[in-house]
Amino acid sequence: MAGWIGRATEALAARVGEGLGGLLNATFGNAAELIIAGIALSKGLINVVKASITGSIIGNVLLVLGLSILMGGTKYKEQRFNRTAASTSVISLSLAAIGLIIPTVFHLAANSTPGGWSPLVEQKLSLAIAVVLFLTYFCMLGFSLWTHKHFYRGAHAHAEESAVQWSRGKAIVILLIATALVAVLSEFLVGTIENVRDSVGLTEVFVGVIVVAIVGNAAEHSTAIAVAMKNKMDLSVGIAIGSSLQIALFVAPLLIFLSYLFGRPMDLEFTMPEVVAVVASVYILFQISGDGETNWIEGVQLLSVYVILGILFFYLPEPRHVSH
Amino acid sequence: MAGWIGRATEALAARVGEGLGGLLNATFGNAAELIIAGIALSKGLINVVKASITGSIIGNVLLVLGLSILMGGTKYKEQRFNRTAASTSVISLSLAAIGLIIPTVFHLAANSTPGGWSPLVEQKLSLAIAVVLFLTYFCMLGFSLWTHKHFYRGAHAHAEESAVQWSRGKAIVILLIATALVAVLSEFLVGTIENVRDSVGLTEVFVGVIVVAIVGNAAEHSTAIAVAMKNKMDLSVGIAIGSSLQIALFVAPLLIFLSYLFGRPMDLEFTMPEVVAVVASVYILFQISGDGETNWIEGVQLLSVYVILGILFFYLPEPRHVSH
Amino acid sequence: MAGWIGRATEALAARVGEGLGGLLNATFGNAAELIIAGIALSKGLINVVKASITGSIIGNVLLVLGLSILMGGTKYKEQRFNRTAASTSVISLSLAAIGLIIPTVFHLAANSTPGGWSPLVEQKLSLAIAVVLFLTYFCMLGFSLWTHKHFYRGAHAHAEESAVQWSRGKAIVILLIATALVAVLSEFLVGTIENVRDSVGLTEVFVGVIVVAIVGNAAEHSTAIAVAMKNKMDLSVGIAIGSSLQIALFVAPLLIFLSYLFGRPMDLEFTMPEVVAVVASVYILFQISGDGETNWIEGVQLLSVYVILGILFFYLPEPRHVSH
Repeated sequence: MAGWIGRATEALAARVGEGLGGLLNATFGNAAELIIAGIALSKGLINVVKASITGSIIGNVLLVLGLSILMGGTKYKEQRFNRTAASTSVISLSLAAIGLIIPTVFHLAANSTPGGWSPLVEQKLSLAIAVVLFLTYFCMLGFSLWTHKHFYRGAHAHAEESAVQWSRGKAIVILLIATALVAVLSEFLVGTIENVRDSVGLTEVFVGVIVVAIVGNAAEHSTAIAVAMKNKMDLSVGIAIGSSLQIALFVAPLLIFLSYLFGRPMDLEFTMPEVVAVVASVYILFQISGDGETNWIEGVQLLSVYVILGILFFYLPEPRHVSH
Repeated sequence: MAGWIGRATEALAARVGEGLGGLLNATFGNAAELIIAGIALSKGLINVVKASITGSIIGNVLLVLGLSILMGGTKYKEQRFNRTAASTSVISLSLAAIGLIIPTVFHLAANSTPGGWSPLVEQKLSLAIAVVLFLTYFCMLGFSLWTHKHFYRGAHAHAEESAVQWSRGKAIVILLIATALVAVLSEFLVGTIENVRDSVGLTEVFVGVIVVAIVGNAAEHSTAIAVAMKNKMDLSVGIAIGSSLQIALFVAPLLIFLSYLFGRPMDLEFTMPEVVAVVASVYILFQISGDGETNWIEGVQLLSVYVILGILFFYLPEPRHVSH
Repeated sequence: MAGWIGRATEALAARVGEGLGGLLNATFGNAAELIIAGIALSKGLINVVKASITGSIIGNVLLVLGLSILMGGTKYKEQRFNRTAASTSVISLSLAAIGLIIPTVFHLAANSTPGGWSPLVEQKLSLAIAVVLFLTYFCMLGFSLWTHKHFYRGAHAHAEESAVQWSRGKAIVILLIATALVAVLSEFLVGTIENVRDSVGLTEVFVGVIVVAIVGNAAEHSTAIAVAMKNKMDLSVGIAIGSSLQIALFVAPLLIFLSYLFGRPMDLEFTMPEVVAVVASVYILFQISGDGETNWIEGVQLLSVYVILGILFFYLPEPRHVSH
């Protein structure tokens, strides 16, 4: 499945440019996540939804990009990508990280004021922030698809180089079908994991942030690594950063809006370890993406941060809703 | 008034270079703020003074610069400014942000030590930090006016291009008069706002951080935007960053020193939301200013962060002095 | 002594390249620190060990590099160094800083869960993180000594330019002897300081973070400044960043491993002021090292942050083990 997604993405990228190809791949990949999170939300599993948002962001930024850079780095001494395009996405990701910190800051500050905190105010605050992030996402789309699309074309968008010669329509249909199958499989796998969880002794947070994220981002993983090894770093970086950006600016706000439809309003307040994980990931991504070049040690650095965060969530005791 | 300030600043910039023109504009603009804060200080309104310091920093970095970049970006696809000059100022702003965090860190750490915290020690700590920031400001002046002034000359300092052909003396006199009038008006407006506040139901923090900052930085706003639309980004960035730098490294320490004259020593301890707001602003500024280029989406990103912080301060309950 | 270390380092750098020379100097300089910390560890003085780790990192990043840049800047208007090599080290330092934050985050999060925190879990978490940092250090060595050693050769590695014409063997022997003497002297000085401490009224934290770090890094100080004034910034930056990197990724994990041998397991949990100090230092270093150029104001900026952190640790009340 993942192989098909990869080939369809590459074929598409060859026609619309690597940056856009990355966006499309991210969109299909995140459709699976949105469906899973939507189901969890309808069941009132708000903490699982938040953990999967955190996990998707750090998983894409650290694990997907880290593996891509490392694997690409084993074949090429240095790899290049469009610094300006990546930088714009990273800044948006930083802005999203700030948006996700604020409800936690609000909670801590309001909590120490007698009678200052109420779930209702926190929901209003979160809703307002979600609207800002949502609008910023559409500005980003306008920027990358319209006013500054030349940044996102990538350096190697030559259809003739691509092994796969699919038409745009065929590539999109294959992407759609493969993504639907991945979504079904993901749902199935998540269910399986939940059952195995108790016997292995993993906490709910660890499963949400690490395990679900790895399974749920299977499409991004395989494609991003495959294209990195073909030295198409613009596409690889576009998938990894684009996917986490879409989670933060589009999927997370959308889930907030959906939660109102389900009659169980969700806020954007994350636990302190989740906030630290997102901020650390975005910060290290900013440093790595600053020069438009990658080498294997940068992959190792991203993966090291991922493992360190994984260790944190592994040892973190349940229940998470008491931890703030 | 603002129009005069803008024209005088431009005329001056044409003669002394855009970077220096920015510094002068910032100085006149902040004179108004210093007067307002000084009056508040003499009345013992320490929280209002601190809120206005926070508000000025984030207002200049996010709102003034954000609007300038956005408006400039509607006319020009890409705009450029001197990366090195901006970077030096941004690093100083980061250093100031660290200086403003430390008293809060001290408070939290000392507070958990039995008998470890006292207002007197906190005042000494704040005074010592204020001295360091103050000395750094004069080093920055020496750097930008003397040893490395070529960084600050700007790319477009051609007197003949400027619409206004005022002499240096005339420009300075006009700046002085207009600034004095802005100060009087600001004071008047602030008074009015305070009266309207209760009927609208705004908190003191929101008024201090957001409303007063917008009104008090009217001069920077109008000028920075006007010159950005004339593609003079060195001047625009110089005004916005220079102004917040001056507030952090010069005005804030000066207010600490003044508070001792008034016999009501002020410390530099800010509330946690204020600290987060300043750190987030400086961090996003650092990312935006890193490449020496701007486009409209960067303006949107700065403004998004401003709106998110505005939402935080809007919902934050009173009273702020209990919140830490 | 320090003079000899400097000359031996320069002679070596002339033969193996400036970046490697920096690594070797850092290794010999940190040998002294490892010995001092090991002795403190065997006596169970865990807080002193942690304070000296913090102090070494911020001392090298802020004081050693700050003085080098400032002194070099008094002779040269602009100085250059290899941006890519420095950037890789700074990212590793950021990753180390994240590693050092996590145990504190864990402590805070787990502490608020009833029965969620135990010293044993915290030791396991710290041990796991130490292993990750340790492995990353060896990846960094492989990167700088093997796959990408061309980054670390430095621009001015000409043996004929060097005043000292020692063979590689002679230079290493002199480095070894001089380092051993510095270690003995350091131990002696630290003992003396401890005795003087009470009469002057300094806290244990201040001595550990500031005083011991200055004395223990004497070798790095003198050499880094001396070579900066000879415009060998690659070597100077290599020593300062390399030394703090080695402390964070190699010495700190090694001390954790040693603590198990001594039967008194140490964790990696630092106090909140220590965490803030390390994060602030690495952040400001990242900003300063971003453009591959230095000038005197950047030295002033690093030193200002150092003085501000020094003020914090000076006023911080004892006892430190209650402060979290």
